[in-house]
Amino acid sequence: MVDERERREAQLYAVDKLAEAGIVLTPEEREAVEVVDFGLSRLAETGLQLVVYVNTDRYCAKELVLRPGQTCPEHRHPPFEGTPGKEETFRCRSGLVYLYVEGEPSREPACKPPPGTYTVGREIELRPGMQHTIPAGTLHWFQAGPEGAVVSEFSTTSRDELDDFTDENVLRT
Amino acid sequence: MVDERERREAQLYAVDKLAEAGIVLTPEEREAVEVVDFGLSRLAETGLQLVVYVNTDRYCAKELVLRPGQTCPEHRHPPFEGTPGKEETFRCRSGLVYLYVEGEPSREPACKPPPGTYTVGREIELRPGMQHTIPAGTLHWFQAGPEGAVVSEFSTTSRDELDDFTDENVLRT
Repeated sequence: MVDERERREAQLYAVDKLAEAGIVLTPEEREAVEVVDFGLSRLAETGLQLVVYVNTDRYCAKELVLRPGQTCPEHRHPPFEGTPGKEETFRCRSGLVYLYVEGEPSREPACKPPPGTYTVGREIELRPGMQHTIPAGTLHWFQAGPEGAVVSEFSTTSRDELDDFTDENVLRT
Repeated sequence: MVDERERREAQLYAVDKLAEAGIVLTPEEREAVEVVDFGLSRLAETGLQLVVYVNTDRYCAKELVLRPGQTCPEHRHPPFEGTPGKEETFRCRSGLVYLYVEGEPSREPACKPPPGTYTVGREIELRPGMQHTIPAGTLHWFQAGPEGAVVSEFSTTSRDELDDFTDENVLRT
């Protein structure tokens, strides 16, 4: 659970990082920055800040902001309403993010996952201007480098509440 | 038709405007900036520069760059392969862009269309942080303000070659 002070602080962090990356938000968007702790109450360690620009029944675009070392826990986007589930492209805008996906695990990964259940370990390092597309239904998690990160997400329709987390303690509401 | 010198100059303009907006491109993306004159050979007046980040069979994301006063001519995105056609969201990142869509024409529009056939006139002014979603199959055109513009486009799959232009002299290849 995120208390009001913590939520406000995380929103301000996200707004600052987006501004530093040259990304302009409306006043309404700045107020609406979503702060997610995945039900773990360890926001600085496992959490995410995000701005949803558009989410129609056909496509979606967001900005994701992570604090230094902050992790978005392992999950997949399941099929729904006759679609194969969410397919998404992460494009790093500022900072550095390490993405972990299904496949041969990297021998010397840059990140250590926080406490919890993590099963995939193929590392993809994304610096500004670099991007990676994650097919629908595949497991992934990501962690920001030491300066945090701003990541644009382009995708099919987003249904965050359907996300299927590997760790049964994780909640996305 | 765009000659090599003109194409190169337009690419450099786009790369500079994107950099000014804080948008990082890879060297390959900088080389691949698309320069479109819509077959009219009046690039500075009617044209567009763009970078395609991703275009899968489900969604697409691009950056559009316009010179001061440059116009993208009126068109619609028709249905294809059983889909309703491309639905797209324009989000202004820097500069100013005037978007014209179907509906009650604005009484005192900011822009005058260049020579050609233009039939829709409901004006939507987009400054940085502002966005507008265009439903599939509806006519639209846009023109940059006096400082040019950078516009992010989030959409369903893009099939530019299918675009249906109001002016029969316009070509998109």
